[in-house]
Amino acid sequence: MSVVRLPSDSTPFAARRKRLIEQLDGRTAWIPAGAPVSRNYPAAQYPYRASSHFLYLTGAAVPGGALLFRGGRATLYVDPPADDDALWHGETPGLDAMAEATGLRVRPMKELDLSSDVLTVAAPDRSTRENQVARLGREPGDETDALLLDAMVALRAVHDDHAIAGLREAAKATVAAHRAGMAATRPGATEHAIKTAMVAAMSELGMGTAYRPIVSIAGEVLHNETYDHTAAAGDLLLADVGAEAPGGWAGDVTRTWPVSGSFTELQARIYTIVLESQRRAIAMCTPGTRYRDIHLEAGLALAEGLVELGLMKGEPNAIVDSDAHALFFPHGVGHLIGLDVHDMEDLGDRAGYAPGRERSTRFGLGYLRLDRDLEPGMAVTIEPGFYTVPAILDGGRFRELRERFVDEAMLTKVRAEVRGIRIEDDVLITEGAPDVLTEDAPKSIADVEAAVGA
Amino acid sequence: MSVVRLPSDSTPFAARRKRLIEQLDGRTAWIPAGAPVSRNYPAAQYPYRASSHFLYLTGAAVPGGALLFRGGRATLYVDPPADDDALWHGETPGLDAMAEATGLRVRPMKELDLSSDVLTVAAPDRSTRENQVARLGREPGDETDALLLDAMVALRAVHDDHAIAGLREAAKATVAAHRAGMAATRPGATEHAIKTAMVAAMSELGMGTAYRPIVSIAGEVLHNETYDHTAAAGDLLLADVGAEAPGGWAGDVTRTWPVSGSFTELQARIYTIVLESQRRAIAMCTPGTRYRDIHLEAGLALAEGLVELGLMKGEPNAIVDSDAHALFFPHGVGHLIGLDVHDMEDLGDRAGYAPGRERSTRFGLGYLRLDRDLEPGMAVTIEPGFYTVPAILDGGRFRELRERFVDEAMLTKVRAEVRGIRIEDDVLITEGAPDVLTEDAPKSIADVEAAVGA
Repeated sequence: MSVVRLPSDSTPFAARRKRLIEQLDGRTAWIPAGAPVSRNYPAAQYPYRASSHFLYLTGAAVPGGALLFRGGRATLYVDPPADDDALWHGETPGLDAMAEATGLRVRPMKELDLSSDVLTVAAPDRSTRENQVARLGREPGDETDALLLDAMVALRAVHDDHAIAGLREAAKATVAAHRAGMAATRPGATEHAIKTAMVAAMSELGMGTAYRPIVSIAGEVLHNETYDHTAAAGDLLLADVGAEAPGGWAGDVTRTWPVSGSFTELQARIYTIVLESQRRAIAMCTPGTRYRDIHLEAGLALAEGLVELGLMKGEPNAIVDSDAHALFFPHGVGHLIGLDVHDMEDLGDRAGYAPGRERSTRFGLGYLRLDRDLEPGMAVTIEPGFYTVPAILDGGRFRELRERFVDEAMLTKVRAEVRGIRIEDDVLITEGAPDVLTEDAPKSIADVEAAVGA
Repeated sequence: MSVVRLPSDSTPFAARRKRLIEQLDGRTAWIPAGAPVSRNYPAAQYPYRASSHFLYLTGAAVPGGALLFRGGRATLYVDPPADDDALWHGETPGLDAMAEATGLRVRPMKELDLSSDVLTVAAPDRSTRENQVARLGREPGDETDALLLDAMVALRAVHDDHAIAGLREAAKATVAAHRAGMAATRPGATEHAIKTAMVAAMSELGMGTAYRPIVSIAGEVLHNETYDHTAAAGDLLLADVGAEAPGGWAGDVTRTWPVSGSFTELQARIYTIVLESQRRAIAMCTPGTRYRDIHLEAGLALAEGLVELGLMKGEPNAIVDSDAHALFFPHGVGHLIGLDVHDMEDLGDRAGYAPGRERSTRFGLGYLRLDRDLEPGMAVTIEPGFYTVPAILDGGRFRELRERFVDEAMLTKVRAEVRGIRIEDDVLITEGAPDVLTEDAPKSIADVEAAVGA
């Protein structure tokens, strides 16, 4: 068994379980913790991460564990420690200690009885999912499980105080990482070294990463996960890095800064356009607003700025209606954030899209991960960007859009100076003004330039 | 598709493939690269690590790829990039570029034909193994595959020049990590902060970790992977940390240092005993020596030292024959090291144990991962240790050994000052003297004390 982690206070988790039980309508539900996963051989495992659903309901990481709701009561089933566990992994808590810490009834795994009709949610790892298939005789997390899945979405989409505290904790370390990354940047620094400084800043606060960091001068590669370049004066460095708090809560921030410590005039103009797009999008993060409208507003703001700059031609609303803004902003403006950085993306679009709403196939909307009406307690990212992506600009698919809406002379100038700019914050929806959890990460041109170490 | 990595020079890999083909006796063999593995939801993956067998034969990391040997020729089968791969992951090399870099024939995965009798080795990830079961109608890597598995062991157990260069590269970063860890240590430092400094030192050299680091004042927990303690004066910090070179080669070093910068007298005496045990074990790392004899020699050296210290009673040889040294040194003295830190442990004891040798069930031998006669080109770790493990010393199982061989008064003193000491280096077997790849990591009492930052 890998390391067991138990909560210091079971109160918030007991409250969540109570709310889930209310929604289960007497049905039995099995929430697996998930099992450790091998890297190159069985004993060499990736760091264990419990299923977010399990974490949400227990605050515990219990490799191979199972939380069962039956008859209004929750029980945690665990594998008893192997004979030599104490030698290799130290003393592991016994069943009584686990019960004390979690507020749960705790029983050995062999007593887990799934003979009745059981709802479940798929575990993150394939081994546990195979076990789910074997025990239930069907795929876990299919439509049979809709009652449970919808209940989890309802609970997790609107954050309670404990969740918000976790998000704030992650946000704090995420901000520290970005400050450290800026400070470590100078011409000649490698992407590796800058990433290292960012990861170290989070590690010093006892946190790892919520997702694989993007730290790159090739900002146009949206999910770039290599760190091989050396940064040079004139380059922009794009860092999309977020911490994971010990309880599992994610931070997700992107900043883009000039390696030399000074934006060029053109870089500054485009940075300002993205910043204004983000400002307008964040201002719309209020209860009742449909998230897709925020995405479209961010696109419109970008289009207005790019027309003013002379990079795009035409009327901004027409640009957005034609998806032409997506030539430079080809992704969604954000997503839910919680225990997963793309919260509950394991459930497909069930969490991100409100009932009756479906993902569009349009170029300007197809990558949008969220289309709900916002409510107080929801947390979302707002992350517009501007990129010059060869696969988009030079591909045949969008030639017509480019001819109609892009000024070629200006595009040549822009491509010479800007590969990718993204500005991303984590925003908590409140009854009042949006609460930007990550606002302490330098963002204005003056603040960013001052924070760069060069 | 995740990021594809290709070798800068295919020559060493072509030579290895040629040698494997010679041993395959005309049989067809399928070496899967392995697939990326999810962490909390499908798109959130752990960093991809290709199968070591695949890495060994190609120098490439091609998620989902398959290397096929048939009729004396090797072909790499790959999934063509998805439509939007270039947007998210940047331009991925095409089939021609892959062929150029790897020296292999490269074909789309859909052409992979496994209709004939195929040998295979199990992939590290469950998804690929399921695919192997589906395509072959049996478990991969079973006795049917013995010819291939034995051929891989024969190749990989004796390192060629390219492999040795990789091990040296990993060793260099591993040494840097230990120096950084020592420098970052002072009373009040957290295990987290020390680990962070070590990981950062490797990252600055462009390397990650070969395994999950152990950085702990609770050195008696052999595979401790938490970092929650704060180090205090009087504590010993045990760090078992190794780098993974970009090509996949592992380093594996343990050092133990005093948090205050000075060993206590008793700590220094026991440290010296472990160091002498390691010295004698390393001296035996010459061609023709049976590795189990090295393990027993390390145990004997430890027993001699502990008798002299007054912690153990009796004749050192009798102590080892009774497994009583394992009360304080309950693991093996080392293992093969290569592309896996426990090299080829995915094959069970097939790599570690020579044909005809089996793992003993004895307390003093059961955790020994290696029992081969050493040959030039093999690389092993030598890592004796001394621990006061409550689960061993206070458990009922070994009461008799303790009564017979341990001095209780001295044990009380030792337990107050020493929880765990391990000293580990990576050793290359040569025709001449053993080549300690990691000898630059401070090890003598004077060097260690001078390197600690406190």
